[in-house]
Amino acid sequence: MKKIDGAITAPVGFRAAGVRCGIKEHGLDMALIASDRDCAAAGVFTTNAFKAASILVNAGRVASGRARAVVANSGNANACTGEQGMADALRMCALTAELLGVPADMVLNASTGIIGVPLPMDKIERGIRLAAAELSEGGWDEASRAIMTTDTVPKTCAVEFEIAGKTVRIGGICKGSGMICPNMATMHCFITTDAALEPLALRQSLVSSVDASFNSLTVDGDTSTSDQVLVLANGASGCEMIAAGSVHQGVFEGALAFVCLELARAVARDGEGATKYVEVRVVNAQSRQDAKAAAMTIANSPLVKTAVFGQDPNWGRVLAAAGRSGARIDPAKTSLRFGNVEVVRKGEPLPVDRDTARQPMLAPDLVITLDLGLGEEQATALTCDFSYDYVKINAEYHT
Amino acid sequence: MKKIDGAITAPVGFRAAGVRCGIKEHGLDMALIASDRDCAAAGVFTTNAFKAASILVNAGRVASGRARAVVANSGNANACTGEQGMADALRMCALTAELLGVPADMVLNASTGIIGVPLPMDKIERGIRLAAAELSEGGWDEASRAIMTTDTVPKTCAVEFEIAGKTVRIGGICKGSGMICPNMATMHCFITTDAALEPLALRQSLVSSVDASFNSLTVDGDTSTSDQVLVLANGASGCEMIAAGSVHQGVFEGALAFVCLELARAVARDGEGATKYVEVRVVNAQSRQDAKAAAMTIANSPLVKTAVFGQDPNWGRVLAAAGRSGARIDPAKTSLRFGNVEVVRKGEPLPVDRDTARQPMLAPDLVITLDLGLGEEQATALTCDFSYDYVKINAEYHT
Repeated sequence: MKKIDGAITAPVGFRAAGVRCGIKEHGLDMALIASDRDCAAAGVFTTNAFKAASILVNAGRVASGRARAVVANSGNANACTGEQGMADALRMCALTAELLGVPADMVLNASTGIIGVPLPMDKIERGIRLAAAELSEGGWDEASRAIMTTDTVPKTCAVEFEIAGKTVRIGGICKGSGMICPNMATMHCFITTDAALEPLALRQSLVSSVDASFNSLTVDGDTSTSDQVLVLANGASGCEMIAAGSVHQGVFEGALAFVCLELARAVARDGEGATKYVEVRVVNAQSRQDAKAAAMTIANSPLVKTAVFGQDPNWGRVLAAAGRSGARIDPAKTSLRFGNVEVVRKGEPLPVDRDTARQPMLAPDLVITLDLGLGEEQATALTCDFSYDYVKINAEYHT
Repeated sequence: MKKIDGAITAPVGFRAAGVRCGIKEHGLDMALIASDRDCAAAGVFTTNAFKAASILVNAGRVASGRARAVVANSGNANACTGEQGMADALRMCALTAELLGVPADMVLNASTGIIGVPLPMDKIERGIRLAAAELSEGGWDEASRAIMTTDTVPKTCAVEFEIAGKTVRIGGICKGSGMICPNMATMHCFITTDAALEPLALRQSLVSSVDASFNSLTVDGDTSTSDQVLVLANGASGCEMIAAGSVHQGVFEGALAFVCLELARAVARDGEGATKYVEVRVVNAQSRQDAKAAAMTIANSPLVKTAVFGQDPNWGRVLAAAGRSGARIDPAKTSLRFGNVEVVRKGEPLPVDRDTARQPMLAPDLVITLDLGLGEEQATALTCDFSYDYVKINAEYHT
């Protein structure tokens, strides 16, 4: 497997576009991804009780296992918009389908941005027409920018590998903001592949890949009103059909998991106001659930995040967060490292001077390792620090 | 019942002191509260797996139902300090007991401040000696200041009421910081009363009062490493002994709940960096648990808190937080108000202009009311907004 350029248009048979239709104050705000033939499709969606209209539409459509295109705007989430929102989401899909000459139910949709305000449908319709006219095999970069909200950089990834002697490709684009409170972040990820898969195999591999990547950014799975990961597989590589449970599925899944993890890391790294990327690794837990609870509680703690921002090796806050996570913990068996510097061993603080403990916190990436000493399970949470700019971005975003 | 001055020394037979011994950079940092006779005692303690040494010592001692004094320092939490920490906590109690001429196990202790650093015992001992020498019936104000960390104002309350014709008093002092992430806040509250209670009655009334006040500041009960609420009842008013389950217990409990709620509100109002006090009321929930989960999730959401700081009536963030709380919610039955301005009715946004919706957010106090429309249960969470100063305080506190 190797990384390649081209993101969602690296796989054969996909075109994309990103245009500006004026929903956001600045920049591109309408993206379109289309396959030249029908695709197997799968999706993973938010578990929030308030689901955006796009989620309700897409969840029904991917249940069929087939799709052809994804249309996505930024600047307005079309969430908490009642019946009007549902009509608008369906209209986005219908217009796109009409322009592409495909059935309306073969189009998926996504919206991100302000919650609770109806979509400006005149702009939306103009944007969809513009995007449909500009679809191209080089359109991945514009598409990746057109789904951004408070993101500072586009997030893209593509890989190439072989299935039974045939070269296949997986590409993805992703947007994510508000990662300081990851379970509230709106995260959109759109993945394409020219591998051929049975819908069941595609769904299984997506769920597994998301668990180790995007769901490690969040406490309870993806829980904003709009989060979704969609994948379209068009089979244009000519590779043989990948069946659920086959050896080929394992190969495909490894590559898909890689793409998801790369994109999830990029989201954490670009968290709102982030100055540092942080991985919290909990090892030797009694259960995987314990490990994940402790890792996510530490990763979500504002006190830990502000300490990391302040380059302060405040291990007490890390232990205190773990202590309230609900994970089984025996303080006398618990050890903690910042980077390679051990600061607590089996419950006792080590005589590490402050400058030494602080050293790993000066780099742009920080790994915090908590060893619970109770078993063999582990989990990793991906996050970032918590800066003045997080508050600034979120206090001023709406106005 | 009426409010009176004097806090913990308002009840007859209690003296207090607050002195400086140099643990903090500035200000008073050692407090002592002592009764002139043995007291019934009760406590509610953090559920964090990492418990500070003071918690472990006190939990054992209040189990006996008796105590005589509380010694408390600020500037160092004596938490995550291993065996040395336990020895230091016991030494604090022993020295205090020696100076007061009471058995060592009749003294309770508390520490708040930096986690993971051993107590500076030379300063601690000097502080205890100073405080014991300065005990007075007017010492409540200094004591209330000596327990502060990042608090900007001392929090005190006292009330006077009658039990079977006898006038009795309850007084309290409290410190709380980091209220933006309330379940990580270290909160100390010390309450005195000259009512006479059986230890069981005192414990029951304390648990009930804390549930509706301090535990509405937090997600899972009090879960920092050091949180505690202690109450000493010395009976010096001469009122008759209040037994568990008696009518008099009801009267006492009403007054105790009032004192706890006043102090809890004062803690929320003084949250780190807070510019606004916020009450989140969830009404018409199917269960009390649902109501509390929704209220606390909204109250803890950084996105809601930063919106309140930005005076932005971003009701979408409030609904999104409720939606991920786990509470049973039917979007089509959900309504939301900022102050008296209804912004969502039964799932549909109302045509309220932005200036009108924003009006309630300009005041220093904000009430957010979420009506789930599913039942008759309710709960209120007490919190504050999330400002630049929260990040500043927590990024720089340790250094």
